[in-house]
Amino acid sequence: MLFERLCIIGPGLIGGSIARMAKARGDIARHIVATAQSEATRARVRELGFVDEVAETPEEAVQGADCVILCIPVGAYAEVMRRIAPHLAPGSILTDVGSTKGSVVRDVLPLLPKGVHFIPGHPMAGTEFSGPDAGFATLFEGRYCILTPLEGTDPAALEKVRTLWERAGSMVETMDVATHDKVVAMVSHLPHLIAFTICGTADDLAEETREAVLKYAASGFRDFTRIAASDVAMWRDIFLNNREALLEMLARFTEDAQALGRAVRWGQAEFIEDRIRRGRRIRRGLIERNQA
Amino acid sequence: MLFERLCIIGPGLIGGSIARMAKARGDIARHIVATAQSEATRARVRELGFVDEVAETPEEAVQGADCVILCIPVGAYAEVMRRIAPHLAPGSILTDVGSTKGSVVRDVLPLLPKGVHFIPGHPMAGTEFSGPDAGFATLFEGRYCILTPLEGTDPAALEKVRTLWERAGSMVETMDVATHDKVVAMVSHLPHLIAFTICGTADDLAEETREAVLKYAASGFRDFTRIAASDVAMWRDIFLNNREALLEMLARFTEDAQALGRAVRWGQAEFIEDRIRRGRRIRRGLIERNQA
Repeated sequence: MLFERLCIIGPGLIGGSIARMAKARGDIARHIVATAQSEATRARVRELGFVDEVAETPEEAVQGADCVILCIPVGAYAEVMRRIAPHLAPGSILTDVGSTKGSVVRDVLPLLPKGVHFIPGHPMAGTEFSGPDAGFATLFEGRYCILTPLEGTDPAALEKVRTLWERAGSMVETMDVATHDKVVAMVSHLPHLIAFTICGTADDLAEETREAVLKYAASGFRDFTRIAASDVAMWRDIFLNNREALLEMLARFTEDAQALGRAVRWGQAEFIEDRIRRGRRIRRGLIERNQA
Repeated sequence: MLFERLCIIGPGLIGGSIARMAKARGDIARHIVATAQSEATRARVRELGFVDEVAETPEEAVQGADCVILCIPVGAYAEVMRRIAPHLAPGSILTDVGSTKGSVVRDVLPLLPKGVHFIPGHPMAGTEFSGPDAGFATLFEGRYCILTPLEGTDPAALEKVRTLWERAGSMVETMDVATHDKVVAMVSHLPHLIAFTICGTADDLAEETREAVLKYAASGFRDFTRIAASDVAMWRDIFLNNREALLEMLARFTEDAQALGRAVRWGQAEFIEDRIRRGRRIRRGLIERNQA
């Protein structure tokens, strides 16, 4: 048994999936407690029965837990830390699943009690759905989980968090906080910013054309809108808390899109072909890696 | 039997799928002839055996055909029209499958012999693969096919092309050329421009980060690269031949992306939430339409 008392703050898609996975395996935690901000969510989690106990407040929930996992939008970390910090058990592990790591370290570290081991984590898994009903035990299977341990991290605590994700079926990797934030800005946050944007752009078209846009949405546009159907608070917080890296990637992307637009305007066939070929090269790289 | 002699110029993904569909049904054409620019492709089409005859040149191929379908990159229309126009049979139908319609009308109409019925068409179907091996008979099932008939079009000829696509399993719609080009610029061409661009942007990142980008590509980025693995000549020609509409949609999109980036920079949470919500609204519209 990895933990005695596992506490999940925010049993939504990710937190609810961790709880279901832990229940299903039976070798993660002897007792699983969760808490949620709204009474409605707490009631629903009780109904769904994927945890042993639902606490009314985060202060109560973390009492005596040897592992606490923050599964809330990254914008809520500072407030929740202020509430739970005095109640975290000495020697316990605090980890999280947030999509930004620089902001998490910024918000958690100053409030971290001495003797509590903080291991920032980011399971790269998810669906377009959210809330306690959306979770399932196999969500993390075959997906990467990135840990960004800080200097001086207790090796035993790190090993326990690594084991948690390995048992969930994930490939666990470690990297530094800054590299993590750049990589996810490129592979996840910028694509979502683009997806949200293009939906709005379509929505702004004249009524007649918009109807046609919806009707004829080709597969290209469907892909964009699929990733755009995500949790509002989560994505708002991600954008606001990975600002530097996201704006850098957006600036690079915009320059590149404008360059391609310019080539279209001036009929520069070779430039356009080169951009298309580069896209295919990256694509092949992805396929080879997925098969390897 | 819809046609006596059906001629497919360019038996790649789309042309090869039309031929396979016609063969499989048996009620489209008594004889199917195809031609391709390269000797290698012509040999491969002979091997694959999905047409009755492979002609060496387009001039030969169109001889005596009562229906000719152009299935080549839209940039090649003018050159091919110069070659086939003198050989098109009086009373025959000329149609196409190009993704741009304004440029097609511009390139085909001045060379069209009197008595040949020209019906511009665009089956909204495809995969990320190309070439004669990529086609399959069911490619058009359940997909829209847009026809953009010109003023004074012969109703009987239009009806025959409509029947061709209905027998292929498509939902046939008609609209004017300008509306078509705007709609596809938004739902297909702009998403592809973005996809090609973001792949290049990732490729330009420093070597270390790029490796990580490939390794951790989340589903968002995978969607982008899937649509980026498309035929180079086809997409180059689409961009160059739907320039006006594509640049308009790119300009609108870029303004919107910059506005969202600005909101991220200045921490405007409400603006960001609004954009995310609008994306979800459009998404719901798509789902409802697909289910209806």
